[in-house]
Amino acid sequence: MATLDLAQLAKQASIPLADCNLATRNQGLLAMAEALTAHADEIRAANERDLAKAREDGLDAPLLKRLVFDDAKRETVIEGLRSLAALPDPLGRVLTHTELDQGLVLSRVSCPIGVIGIIFEARPDALVQISSLCLKSGNAVLLKGGSEALHTNRALTTVIAEATAQCGVPENWIQLLETRTEVTEMLALNECIDLIVPRGSNAFVKYIMEHTTIPVLGHSSGLCHLYIDRAANAEMACRIAVDAKTQAPATCNTIETLLIHQDAAPALLPQLATALRAAKVELRGDERSRAIVPDLLPATAEDWSTEYLDYILSIKIVNDISEAIGHINRFGSHHTDAIVTDDENAARLFQRRVDSADVFWNASTRFADGFRFGLGAEVGISTSKIHSRGPVGLEGLTIYKWLLDGSGQTVAPYCDGRVKFTHRPL
Amino acid sequence: MATLDLAQLAKQASIPLADCNLATRNQGLLAMAEALTAHADEIRAANERDLAKAREDGLDAPLLKRLVFDDAKRETVIEGLRSLAALPDPLGRVLTHTELDQGLVLSRVSCPIGVIGIIFEARPDALVQISSLCLKSGNAVLLKGGSEALHTNRALTTVIAEATAQCGVPENWIQLLETRTEVTEMLALNECIDLIVPRGSNAFVKYIMEHTTIPVLGHSSGLCHLYIDRAANAEMACRIAVDAKTQAPATCNTIETLLIHQDAAPALLPQLATALRAAKVELRGDERSRAIVPDLLPATAEDWSTEYLDYILSIKIVNDISEAIGHINRFGSHHTDAIVTDDENAARLFQRRVDSADVFWNASTRFADGFRFGLGAEVGISTSKIHSRGPVGLEGLTIYKWLLDGSGQTVAPYCDGRVKFTHRPL
Repeated sequence: MATLDLAQLAKQASIPLADCNLATRNQGLLAMAEALTAHADEIRAANERDLAKAREDGLDAPLLKRLVFDDAKRETVIEGLRSLAALPDPLGRVLTHTELDQGLVLSRVSCPIGVIGIIFEARPDALVQISSLCLKSGNAVLLKGGSEALHTNRALTTVIAEATAQCGVPENWIQLLETRTEVTEMLALNECIDLIVPRGSNAFVKYIMEHTTIPVLGHSSGLCHLYIDRAANAEMACRIAVDAKTQAPATCNTIETLLIHQDAAPALLPQLATALRAAKVELRGDERSRAIVPDLLPATAEDWSTEYLDYILSIKIVNDISEAIGHINRFGSHHTDAIVTDDENAARLFQRRVDSADVFWNASTRFADGFRFGLGAEVGISTSKIHSRGPVGLEGLTIYKWLLDGSGQTVAPYCDGRVKFTHRPL
Repeated sequence: MATLDLAQLAKQASIPLADCNLATRNQGLLAMAEALTAHADEIRAANERDLAKAREDGLDAPLLKRLVFDDAKRETVIEGLRSLAALPDPLGRVLTHTELDQGLVLSRVSCPIGVIGIIFEARPDALVQISSLCLKSGNAVLLKGGSEALHTNRALTTVIAEATAQCGVPENWIQLLETRTEVTEMLALNECIDLIVPRGSNAFVKYIMEHTTIPVLGHSSGLCHLYIDRAANAEMACRIAVDAKTQAPATCNTIETLLIHQDAAPALLPQLATALRAAKVELRGDERSRAIVPDLLPATAEDWSTEYLDYILSIKIVNDISEAIGHINRFGSHHTDAIVTDDENAARLFQRRVDSADVFWNASTRFADGFRFGLGAEVGISTSKIHSRGPVGLEGLTIYKWLLDGSGQTVAPYCDGRVKFTHRPL
C-alpha cells in the first residue's frame, strides 16, 4: 500500500482512537503482552531471519545485540506493557477550568496529538515500547524501524494490530513503513501526520529536521557538560565525573566537556585526572589545565563542539561560574548539564541560567532518562524549546482542547459592554 | 544593524531575562505604561507621519483605522499593561515534583522559551501588547510589524526599550526589524530564534510555515462550523448562528459553514434563513437544503473548503451527528467548531471527536479569543497540534526545565540493581 494510503488509514483511526476509553486502551496493552507470548515462535523465527541476514552482512556486535529479540527482551517489554497499563490516564485531564460567565464554562482538557510518525533504530523492543506509549496516549502511529529488523518488525506489528483489534481498539491505528522511500514520502504528509519523532544518529535526526515542515520532536546532539564549582566536594566531583563520562559513553546524556573553577583546579584537577584515567578516559585539556596536569593532551577549539560518544573528555578551567554558564550556553546542545557544588546559591544560579532541558545539581547527567525520571518510559529526549523538553513520556504525546459549555451565549453583548465576563477559576 | 546581529543581541539578552525576577518584569510593564503617556507627543507625531503616508498611498479605511494609535488606543494598551502586571507569574511554576530517591529530587519548572520572532500586521497597539506578553513571560522578542506602521513602531520600540532598561530589565530584549528582507533572513536563524509567531493573512502565514524549520505557532486559516443537532432549541440556534456569522465576519473564529441534522432541517432551516438574511448574509445551500428553502443559492463542492471572511454562509444537511463530525474533520481548519443541542450525550460525542482547538456546546464560535477565555491577552490563535492550541497567552510563551537536586548520586548503582528508585510524588 502507498505511504499516503497507510497514513490516511492511521488518520482515520486517530479520531475514534482519541475517543477510546481508558479500559479499552489498557486492555489493548495487556492483550499485546499476552499475544507476544502466544506468538513467541513466529516472532522468534522472524527475528532469526533478520539476525542471519545481519550476520551475513557483517553487522557490528553492538548492533547485532540491539537487533536480538529473545525471551529476555520479550519479558522486559511485557513487564513494560504491564507497568504502562497501570499508569494513570494521560487523556481527559482537566488542565484548567474557568467560569467565563454564569452558565458559560471553559475547560482545557488533555487529548491525543493525533498521528505520530516515529523513525527508530533496528531495535524490535523499541517498536513495542513506542507503539504502547502511543496506544496509552490515544495516538495512531506510523512506525519505521531500522531495515535490519524488517521481519521482526512485521511480525510484531501484525501481532499487536490483531491483539488490540480484538479488544475494540480501532483498527489501523498502527502502521508499519518498510522502506527509506516511505520515510521521504512521510516527511511531506502534513495533512495526515501531526508530529515526527526521529531517533538514531545525530546526522540522521538533523536530516529529518531539515527536510520536513511537520513538527519534529527530538535531539540532534547531546553535548553535555559537568561544571565543578569552587566549592565542590572533591570525592563527589570525581565520582560524578566518572559516572557521567563512562557509565555508557555512547549515550546522549554522557558528558563531553568538564569545566572547572580556577580556584578548585589546582587541588582537584589532579584527582579528577587520576580517577578518569583509571576509568580509561583520554583527557584533552586547555592550556591552563595542562599547566596543572602537564601530561593532558592539548584540546583544540574544535574539542568544545565535539560530541565524542567515546572514552574522551575535554577539560577547561574557567574564571568563574558565569564563564562556565556562558561556555555551556554557547557550545552545549541544550540537553543536560550538571554542576557539582556545596554552594546552593551557585547551584540555583546555574539552574536558572543554563538554557538546557535538564540542569542537575550534584547528580550525574546520566539520570536524564524517562524511566529514571519516573515517566514510565520515553519515546525519546527532546532538545526542542516548545511542547516537550527533555525525556518525552506519555504527557509529551498529548495536547489539549478547549471545551466551552454554554447555554446559548453570543459574544455581541460582551463586546458592546452590556455583559461582563466573570473569569472565575473553578 | 544586520538581522543576525539583532537576533544575537536578543539571544544574549534572553539568558539574564529568563533570570529576571517578577518584580522587575512587572516594574518594566508599569514603566512602559508611564512612558507611553510621557512620550505621547513623539509617538503621536510618528503615527501621524505613518498615517499621512498611508493616506497618500490610498490605504483602505479599515487598514487606516488599525494603523491609528490615538489617545483612546493608548489608554486601552495602558490598561492592558496594568492588567498584565497584575497577573500571576507564568515562570518558576513547579509543574511536577518527584522524589527519585532519598536526597534526589526532580522538579519540572516553567521557564521562558527564549527568543520569539513575531511578524504582525500594521497595528501599533499590537506591538505593545505582544512585547508586554513577551516581557511578562521572560522572552526576548524580535518584532516585525507591517511596514505602514514603521515610524510608530520605531517610536514605540525606543520608548519601551528605554523605559524597561531603567527598571533593570536586561537591555536588547526587544528588537525591531524593519524590512521584508529581514523577515526572510529571520526565517533562517535557527540558532538564535526559538519560535516564530506569524500573524496576518492566511497566505502569508502559510508562506512562513513553509519557509522555515524554526517552530511556528499560528493558524493559516479559520474555517469554522456550526452544527445544529436534531435536538436543538430553534431560537438559540438562530441567535448563535447570526452571532457566529455576523458579529465580525472577517475574523478567524467566524463560521463559514452551517451543518444541520436532517430531522431538524424542515422546521428550523426556514427560520435560520430568515434570521441570517435579516443580518444580510448570503446563503448557499446543498441540494437537500434547497429542497426546503428553494431560493438558497446553490453551494458547490468548493464552498465546503472556502473561508469567505464575508457575509456568506454555506449550508449542508447531514444525516446524523457522525456525518457532521466527519465533515468538520475533513473540511475544517481545526480551529473552532460548535454544536447547538439539548442532548448532552450528543454534545460530549461532538466535543470528543471533533479534532479542533476549540469545541463549543451551545455557545458562539466567536468566544474563541484569549481575552474572552480569561488568558489576559493573546499573541495569536494556534491550530498547531503541539505546544499551545487555540488562543496563545502567557502560558503558550513558556516551556519548562527539569531540575534535579542530588547529593552526589551516580546512575551506576541504579543500573546494576543495587539501588532502586522511589519515584514518590512530592
